[in-house]
Amino acid sequence: MTYCVGMLMDAGLVFLSDTRTNAGVDQINTFRKMAVFERAGERVMVLLSAGNLAVTQSVVTLLHERMAQDGDSLLRAPNLFEAARHVGDCVREVHRRDAESLRAFGIDFNVSLIFGGQIAGEPPRLFNVYAAGNFVEATPDTPYFQIGESKYGKPIIDRIFRHHTPLEEAAKCALISMDSTLKSNLSVGMPLDLAILRRDELRVACLRRIEADDPYFQRLRVGWSERIQQAFTALPGLEEAGWCDGRG
Amino acid sequence: MTYCVGMLMDAGLVFLSDTRTNAGVDQINTFRKMAVFERAGERVMVLLSAGNLAVTQSVVTLLHERMAQDGDSLLRAPNLFEAARHVGDCVREVHRRDAESLRAFGIDFNVSLIFGGQIAGEPPRLFNVYAAGNFVEATPDTPYFQIGESKYGKPIIDRIFRHHTPLEEAAKCALISMDSTLKSNLSVGMPLDLAILRRDELRVACLRRIEADDPYFQRLRVGWSERIQQAFTALPGLEEAGWCDGRG
Repeated sequence: MTYCVGMLMDAGLVFLSDTRTNAGVDQINTFRKMAVFERAGERVMVLLSAGNLAVTQSVVTLLHERMAQDGDSLLRAPNLFEAARHVGDCVREVHRRDAESLRAFGIDFNVSLIFGGQIAGEPPRLFNVYAAGNFVEATPDTPYFQIGESKYGKPIIDRIFRHHTPLEEAAKCALISMDSTLKSNLSVGMPLDLAILRRDELRVACLRRIEADDPYFQRLRVGWSERIQQAFTALPGLEEAGWCDGRG
Repeated sequence: MTYCVGMLMDAGLVFLSDTRTNAGVDQINTFRKMAVFERAGERVMVLLSAGNLAVTQSVVTLLHERMAQDGDSLLRAPNLFEAARHVGDCVREVHRRDAESLRAFGIDFNVSLIFGGQIAGEPPRLFNVYAAGNFVEATPDTPYFQIGESKYGKPIIDRIFRHHTPLEEAAKCALISMDSTLKSNLSVGMPLDLAILRRDELRVACLRRIEADDPYFQRLRVGWSERIQQAFTALPGLEEAGWCDGRG
């Protein structure tokens, strides 16, 4: 499995992905699930992928191939909407080529993508592209997307993250969300890839591979665990409910 | 959907369930998912159920019918293991009667149960009974089971709950876990049912229907939300990571 999250803010975009892939439990590997497409000063885009690795790799490779050719590509799309359509077209091309053969082996054509960035003249935008090549766009009401093992890490994002959250705080929130997922699900694993895009910089502001022994991430994990325990302890105990004085 | 959790401790057992059932999004109802079987002073058992409501209701009704008859029943089982087997037998009986007809309509025979309690002469025990009627038993290493929408509320249980946790604290932890689930998933809803069994009392110590406007549960939800925000804010900021000084 996988866990990836993409966050849209006034101030820019944050992307975080794990690197674990597994086929069953006995074939576990590390693959980058984050791809960056950049023409610095003009456009910058980040793609996070979950699902069948053969499918997601094919999509990313196709996107790079198209960039090296003359026709439509992420580098020529006039805006992020057209860029997301291009991503969807590449998903559909892989589907046309592979879906039937996969079906013959009982394998679903399983792919889910988070795609976002900024092209000069537009604000930052964020999309969730589905296996059918269609997509939805994030808005201030729902300014984030998750793909893969999304449920463990959703409560903390729902509590903390808003469209007006500063970039560094959003990245911290994404890391805490990832920590909860790592703790509860073996199919999500270190290292992580983090990308931060500041509005109107039109280049990646920060692109970081975070290893398991990274001192800051360690501090975050230990600190969060301790503070959660303290927060829990500080809450009023059940005896204050008065529920169990009789038999309720 | 549903969210239920059962917790096994040295000190006894805690059970918590929501009450929402839904068929799609336009048929939403409230049903109790907790059943209590008790012969005070001799045995006490609690069953939590998730899955197809017609199936889970049939199982609970069968268990009650058996108790009113002369043969095997929860009241005659010599220990909790045999009681869990009896629950499994009732699941299999419903399967024999209904599964083929359900299949004809493309409906899975979908049921998952948490079953636990204490019979005089034994310590408290806790089981997770599957749709096939087989089951696993909780141990001090893994002293809890969840069924239904379990992922949102798993991280907090993993962080807080242990086999030696006091009963009231476990109940508080279950309520926080439920709160995270309620916040993130519409298919889980108020009111809640809480049962606490103290070791060797052989009766329910506390059985409580918790409504949405319950003052203690409100305090817990608001207090937890505030403390999570404070804990998050108190963690070191991303600038301390030194990741983004260059481009990482």
